[in-house]
Amino acid sequence: MGKLVIVGTVAFDAIETPFGKTDKILGGAATFIGLAASQFKVDSTVVSVVGGDFPQEYLDLLSDRNIDISGIEIVKDGKTFFWSGKYHNDMNSRDTLVTELNTLADFNPIVPDTYKDAEVVMLGNLHPSVQMSVLNQMDKKPKLVVLDTMNFWMDSALDELLETIKHIDVITINDEEARQLTGEYSLVVAARKIHEMGPKYVVIKKGEHGALLFHDDNIFYAPALPLEEVFDPTGAGDTFAGGFSGFLARTNNFSFENMKQAVIYGSALASFCVEKFGTQRMVNLKADEVKKRLKQFQDLTQFEIKLT
Amino acid sequence: MGKLVIVGTVAFDAIETPFGKTDKILGGAATFIGLAASQFKVDSTVVSVVGGDFPQEYLDLLSDRNIDISGIEIVKDGKTFFWSGKYHNDMNSRDTLVTELNTLADFNPIVPDTYKDAEVVMLGNLHPSVQMSVLNQMDKKPKLVVLDTMNFWMDSALDELLETIKHIDVITINDEEARQLTGEYSLVVAARKIHEMGPKYVVIKKGEHGALLFHDDNIFYAPALPLEEVFDPTGAGDTFAGGFSGFLARTNNFSFENMKQAVIYGSALASFCVEKFGTQRMVNLKADEVKKRLKQFQDLTQFEIKLT
Repeated sequence: MGKLVIVGTVAFDAIETPFGKTDKILGGAATFIGLAASQFKVDSTVVSVVGGDFPQEYLDLLSDRNIDISGIEIVKDGKTFFWSGKYHNDMNSRDTLVTELNTLADFNPIVPDTYKDAEVVMLGNLHPSVQMSVLNQMDKKPKLVVLDTMNFWMDSALDELLETIKHIDVITINDEEARQLTGEYSLVVAARKIHEMGPKYVVIKKGEHGALLFHDDNIFYAPALPLEEVFDPTGAGDTFAGGFSGFLARTNNFSFENMKQAVIYGSALASFCVEKFGTQRMVNLKADEVKKRLKQFQDLTQFEIKLT
Repeated sequence: MGKLVIVGTVAFDAIETPFGKTDKILGGAATFIGLAASQFKVDSTVVSVVGGDFPQEYLDLLSDRNIDISGIEIVKDGKTFFWSGKYHNDMNSRDTLVTELNTLADFNPIVPDTYKDAEVVMLGNLHPSVQMSVLNQMDKKPKLVVLDTMNFWMDSALDELLETIKHIDVITINDEEARQLTGEYSLVVAARKIHEMGPKYVVIKKGEHGALLFHDDNIFYAPALPLEEVFDPTGAGDTFAGGFSGFLARTNNFSFENMKQAVIYGSALASFCVEKFGTQRMVNLKADEVKKRLKQFQDLTQFEIKLT
């Protein structure tokens, strides 16, 4: 069974949308990534840090899904990373109300020994030097390293980001970030520049507009499912990353053709994530529901060419 | 051969982009629609109005492509509609510098007698009452009426627009306009509300993000081709409309399946339009170039589902 190392935050989220609000619920990039990847028969570990206030119940939620949690450091006298956000009426943009780094401020990820030979590493959104420290612990270069980042690190740690991405295979960012990173407006030209920075594959996430996968001169466009209702977008991008990396760890095939599949799986899983608050939809997601959603994605974009 | 009535502006455009500027060149919604539709073996007529300053050369450009121009009224002592715009560096948003309605202010479209039995009518963006007056001239209800509109008419002539769209089959608008018209953020819900207003088919144009086709519970998502360079976006939306309506007039098949094809053709033709200033790319576009571009569109989104 393919091994997958997932690094990122495990956290408390408090979310407010036009539809309702939550108190502190389970969140964090690595949580969403892990839950999505657990849709596949992979041996995955989540490397993270929480405080003494993190409920055993939440840890069980991960381990019940066969996610290894031996790499989640518990800082007994510390507090778990806490994020609180409020979504605007359009459910697209949001304000961050609270960010308490807590134990995350000193996060030093330790990859469990049995996972140092993992084929796939999924570096969730963190300081690029922290992401690099994970790569440095691997026994040998993994078959695939996927890195998620955001404009915050482009603003505050650009040199470290540019150094780290020399060592990765896939970068996932959104269209604004691709433009900021390269100074190019055309996503085709931006992707080409990003290839030169290191990653052979560039995934540009466009939220409600889908995702683009670039690899040399090949481009693939995965749709986003037009939804009747977006209940809570929190974790959708990380769920995409989990579906993407989980599928690749499972299939052990890193060709462009298979990468397209991975993007579709990621998009399909992300479309479930937004249906309920936090992780609620992802913890009980069944394989046949995913299969049905994949078919919906296929119906959404497939066509024959009739020349006339 | 299927007949197509095209109504809209035939105009002078003066365009400025970061790449260069033009003086008055050929433009207008009906011009772009007509040129796109002429890619198909259809018998199309452009119903419009120009002034005495409109060069014969431009009229020949249309008639040379077998577009009937008997419905283009020439107001000898009048001036042709003139629009001047300047695109921002992102080539997406633009400022209107000049709008001189000129002869358009009194435009009263007269459908040539031989086209009053046309199967397909393409109502380019105009005052909805002017669009309705065209429908009232048809011998019988056309098989398909496509209407393009914009937020300007939603602001200034909403009642007339709501009345006119009761009589149409397909509306083409962008995502912001769909949201403004219905008060809904979800495009799925917006399309459902628009169905209730009249049109069985809703095409939501999303510019660089592609286009969505809605029909009851069916949704189709056509990509936009990620481009290395957008030279001049002027007329892209109208080119889409011309490809869409031209394909449908040619194939005389108004099923959802065929409508998907029409959306793809429209998108493919629009992707050529933006490659050069104004109509330059469209006047010489060859069938084999279109065929190649359609294949590119297919490669962009097609995938098999591999369950795992």
